[in-house]
Amino acid sequence: MSETVGAIDLRSDTLTQPSREMKEAMMLAGLGDDVFGEDPTVRQLESKLAGIFGMEAGLFCPSGTMSNQIAIRLHTGPQTELICHKHSHIYLYEGGGIMSNSQASVKLLDGELGKLRAEAIREAINPDDDHAPETTLVSLENTMNKGGGSVYTLDEVRPIRQLCKETGLKLHVDGARLFNALVHSGERPYDWGKMCDTLSICLSKGLGCPVGSVLLGDQATLRKARKVRKAFGGGMRQAGMLAAAGIYALDHHVARLEDDHERARWVGQLLANVPGVIEVLPVVTNIVIARLDKISPKSFLDQLADKQIRAVKFGKDLVRMVTHLDIEDRHLEAMEQRLAQWKVRF
Amino acid sequence: MSETVGAIDLRSDTLTQPSREMKEAMMLAGLGDDVFGEDPTVRQLESKLAGIFGMEAGLFCPSGTMSNQIAIRLHTGPQTELICHKHSHIYLYEGGGIMSNSQASVKLLDGELGKLRAEAIREAINPDDDHAPETTLVSLENTMNKGGGSVYTLDEVRPIRQLCKETGLKLHVDGARLFNALVHSGERPYDWGKMCDTLSICLSKGLGCPVGSVLLGDQATLRKARKVRKAFGGGMRQAGMLAAAGIYALDHHVARLEDDHERARWVGQLLANVPGVIEVLPVVTNIVIARLDKISPKSFLDQLADKQIRAVKFGKDLVRMVTHLDIEDRHLEAMEQRLAQWKVRF
Amino acid sequence: MSETVGAIDLRSDTLTQPSREMKEAMMLAGLGDDVFGEDPTVRQLESKLAGIFGMEAGLFCPSGTMSNQIAIRLHTGPQTELICHKHSHIYLYEGGGIMSNSQASVKLLDGELGKLRAEAIREAINPDDDHAPETTLVSLENTMNKGGGSVYTLDEVRPIRQLCKETGLKLHVDGARLFNALVHSGERPYDWGKMCDTLSICLSKGLGCPVGSVLLGDQATLRKARKVRKAFGGGMRQAGMLAAAGIYALDHHVARLEDDHERARWVGQLLANVPGVIEVLPVVTNIVIARLDKISPKSFLDQLADKQIRAVKFGKDLVRMVTHLDIEDRHLEAMEQRLAQWKVRF
Amino acid sequence: MSETVGAIDLRSDTLTQPSREMKEAMMLAGLGDDVFGEDPTVRQLESKLAGIFGMEAGLFCPSGTMSNQIAIRLHTGPQTELICHKHSHIYLYEGGGIMSNSQASVKLLDGELGKLRAEAIREAINPDDDHAPETTLVSLENTMNKGGGSVYTLDEVRPIRQLCKETGLKLHVDGARLFNALVHSGERPYDWGKMCDTLSICLSKGLGCPVGSVLLGDQATLRKARKVRKAFGGGMRQAGMLAAAGIYALDHHVARLEDDHERARWVGQLLANVPGVIEVLPVVTNIVIARLDKISPKSFLDQLADKQIRAVKFGKDLVRMVTHLDIEDRHLEAMEQRLAQWKVRF
Repeated sequence: MSETVGAIDLRSDTLTQPSREMKEAMMLAGLGDDVFGEDPTVRQLESKLAGIFGMEAGLFCPSGTMSNQIAIRLHTGPQTELICHKHSHIYLYEGGGIMSNSQASVKLLDGELGKLRAEAIREAINPDDDHAPETTLVSLENTMNKGGGSVYTLDEVRPIRQLCKETGLKLHVDGARLFNALVHSGERPYDWGKMCDTLSICLSKGLGCPVGSVLLGDQATLRKARKVRKAFGGGMRQAGMLAAAGIYALDHHVARLEDDHERARWVGQLLANVPGVIEVLPVVTNIVIARLDKISPKSFLDQLADKQIRAVKFGKDLVRMVTHLDIEDRHLEAMEQRLAQWKVRF
Repeated sequence: MSETVGAIDLRSDTLTQPSREMKEAMMLAGLGDDVFGEDPTVRQLESKLAGIFGMEAGLFCPSGTMSNQIAIRLHTGPQTELICHKHSHIYLYEGGGIMSNSQASVKLLDGELGKLRAEAIREAINPDDDHAPETTLVSLENTMNKGGGSVYTLDEVRPIRQLCKETGLKLHVDGARLFNALVHSGERPYDWGKMCDTLSICLSKGLGCPVGSVLLGDQATLRKARKVRKAFGGGMRQAGMLAAAGIYALDHHVARLEDDHERARWVGQLLANVPGVIEVLPVVTNIVIARLDKISPKSFLDQLADKQIRAVKFGKDLVRMVTHLDIEDRHLEAMEQRLAQWKVRF
Repeated sequence: MSETVGAIDLRSDTLTQPSREMKEAMMLAGLGDDVFGEDPTVRQLESKLAGIFGMEAGLFCPSGTMSNQIAIRLHTGPQTELICHKHSHIYLYEGGGIMSNSQASVKLLDGELGKLRAEAIREAINPDDDHAPETTLVSLENTMNKGGGSVYTLDEVRPIRQLCKETGLKLHVDGARLFNALVHSGERPYDWGKMCDTLSICLSKGLGCPVGSVLLGDQATLRKARKVRKAFGGGMRQAGMLAAAGIYALDHHVARLEDDHERARWVGQLLANVPGVIEVLPVVTNIVIARLDKISPKSFLDQLADKQIRAVKFGKDLVRMVTHLDIEDRHLEAMEQRLAQWKVRF
Repeated sequence: MSETVGAIDLRSDTLTQPSREMKEAMMLAGLGDDVFGEDPTVRQLESKLAGIFGMEAGLFCPSGTMSNQIAIRLHTGPQTELICHKHSHIYLYEGGGIMSNSQASVKLLDGELGKLRAEAIREAINPDDDHAPETTLVSLENTMNKGGGSVYTLDEVRPIRQLCKETGLKLHVDGARLFNALVHSGERPYDWGKMCDTLSICLSKGLGCPVGSVLLGDQATLRKARKVRKAFGGGMRQAGMLAAAGIYALDHHVARLEDDHERARWVGQLLANVPGVIEVLPVVTNIVIARLDKISPKSFLDQLADKQIRAVKFGKDLVRMVTHLDIEDRHLEAMEQRLAQWKVRF
């Protein structure tokens, strides 16, 4: 059985291949030059997603990194500071873009499972003092990748939103995997639009598209966002082909994220029984993080790779596995067999 | 006849729709996650184009603006200066990215038909003085959009290349339409690779792809380019679909650029006879720039639009028309009829 | 006679040595820690100068470059553009700071004697288009160094001020030598405060102080200016010693600038008779620019230096001489003798 | 007795007033235009301090912040990262300049008494990965202000220096109070010059000058430093007056720092007995940090101010006192009396 399955690639949910149906949607898309604002499919995607979240406007971008970096540029600048978790994607994995694109400083907070609480944010706001950059932005990540796919609920974000309003801070949500959070919590996208000033949604993670992300916000903000996208080089011409995949995914790939979550729990259970794994972080959505003991991530991953199971190092003693559209029950059945036979070498 | 033709859109060669054959190539492309460096079609495109120009490596980007902005970042930085023509795309149309992305200063030179000469560049190099930013880069555009699609030949660039080597400057070529230049001059791409440190090629202009550009250079430079692309948000996942269009275009859409040039000359002749047009810049490739007298570009373009002919304003008294893959003889025949009947209102 | 005079240094009015009286004022100054906002003499200088120009507040800075660069930071930012003359000090001589400090683009205009006119500025304002940075600032220099110390009058600036108000642009005046302009025109400083949003005044040029400049503007702007000064490293502790020199200079060295202007006219006449000089720009204030023919600035300056007369190269075929507090009639008498005996070698 | 003493200002060692002897040195200084490189006293100071630390060259700056920010610009840039303690002055108190001046990211480490250890730095160096900025610089602060004036010894820095050499990182020492450290440890300045690539020394803290700092390094680095200083606006004209104070201080105010340290220990003992103070950090040099319990810093400081004793808040539950040139035994005797009578209100 395991033979026919072949490699089981759990490195990331960005690895998915577009399905035949998605590709057909791409081929049939009405196209125009989006730099002239004339691509009907891009406009449809932007408008559809804005509607879903109850926000005024959207902007299609080549990547989630660009959506986030545009938002950061809009809400910060030289001698300002943004508050985020010290494990945030925007700080760790976007090439230093906060500083190189926006010249902004960071206040890095700690917080359980990668999440921030209003009280900690309140204390982290800089006083009005010439020595300190001016705090202007809070950025949250939902789900939180480094928190093991942990989820912010509306009840958790509401006090943060309230604090931001009181203190004049903007709130950005890096929602690369927000649909995973919503499928888990059962909350409505529409209510999340009210929780933030800008929101980025990735199409090329759990949603299974080849390329793309959408930044959402109000009209005035999004007009400026287009200008920033231009200078980053994110303006694409007949981008409707990519947008069509996004529309297809929103129609067909959202509800099924629950399957990824269920399979992630399964992966978590499998990992918990592997020698060398001393802890599996709570599995909430599609991300599984395991802590190792007496074995390095490199050695652990190399031995897994010998069994055609792929994962990634995710910290000094951590490894990560992610379920996605191209991982089915049969893969996990095969994985279960392979792990059962594994004699871990320490 | 003109009825069946409908709108004749000469605003830009970025407007082209991908052909059925190109779309099929996109459908069939082998895909992977290019952020992991695993998309075979992206790699094939990068390597194919690098080979054509005799350069070591390539990097697929979402737009020509991003390719240029990455190159500028690599060759400049805070308190450095680049030399370019005052009508360069990088200065006029990339959202102030030279400064916002790279903190670099510009020395803007004049020059006939948008082209620079070595002597003028030599005089524009800043002395080694604390007051002046350090000159580190020369950027040329070939063909030169604002110069009416004018062409640099190898003989014209060689002394500039020589000067750059002598003085330790880098040379970037914004080759958004370099294939148009090469088809015109009959020069070999391979010889152009030797003329510069980095070279950007657009796939979504005359080549007719929906999205994409490739930055070329040596291995070390391109490794750094990937890091810059990451921070701009230009890393895309299964980008092979877009790259497949690029490969198709390189195989099928290069030689035919000569047709665009021939049609551009035709457009030039038509425009020369229109009342209100006092000058048509020499038509060398696929761009036609006409200078107006006694009529504003807005009025001129509005009246043209009434005849379903579209063009763009290109300066205080200038309009631009561009031929491309979706403009055929029948369009120009129809245009000829429509212009013949046009009673220009001054 | 010439022997007792020794070197005649006309390179710049920044060369002046503080007088005994000025130094005594410095010794007696009440001091405090200005970073804590507690230096009484700094506050007195800022407030005195603000009062003179009818502006709300002032900020003491280590140099005119810093005053200008702070103003530019306050009025621009990434993807914005400022309009200035192509020979402006802020563009040519401040180390590329416009871009490295503020990430702003420049629109460089030409204009007789280094001066801008409202119509040219109006045409240079970028349209609201994603491709172009947003124009936010106009910067004028008065007197204009590279214009040969040329002077803007209120009548010339009023239409520019009006245009800026109409179009929402800020107006900065680099007034490094504004007192020279005012002494020449007889205009009141108070009226100039109404002409601009920010104004920088140098104390270490014609006013003869060892160090310092003051940026003027409204309260809100100046509060932000302090934050920018902090990040540039311009916050100084017991700066009152330097400020005391400024106060002394405002009380004793303004009216006498007329002497410098008169002597500059004398210098201009002397230069006009020197072989090799084909043109002397109109001498209006304390700057004299001479155009050379058939002799390079280097050779001209070397021969002058042999006669213990010092000046600077100021362009491909230009040299500059500046009169100042330490140049008296006896120096020019000696200069006249030395020039009379000069056999220029071509 | 306490009456005649008046206010006892322990807020900072930046508050010192220049002595009569120092002012006389300032008045007698030989001066020139330092922007032309012609101020003999500035050169003497730069050269003297470079000699003391066995480094090649020095650059006089208006503030320690500027010296640090110039060093950071020289060693970092867009998409690079520097490693420092999370309580570093460069991160907390320089206006966000790391990001606004240099576009660099920060890796903020923890460490006892504000000090870093080589092992922690080694783990914090980013891998060569497109997602992460490139680590290029380690910055240490000695003494460490937020660590209560704690001292790095040569033995502690040597492994860090070794690590930096191995891994190609630059090492900057923010030595605003390095002379305090050296007086404490008895180590030679000359040996510290070998420990780092750049070193900043403040003249306006314990050394008692009104204004100034010097950045030290090798010739090539310092040449670039001058260019950065120009763009920040730190080039000053007859700065020799300020430099003369620095020379005087190096000759007369270094050895006496031991008196400040002794008095700081005295202050520490006094504070330890004040109700509300639950901990005094180890007093090593001239800084005393006390942790409060059951009383806020604001209330504590307000009550102290009623007794004419001034200090500053230094964290959520911390206050700081600093001894300096203008604090003598009689001040501490008075302070002892005032504290003895103090009935702290909680």
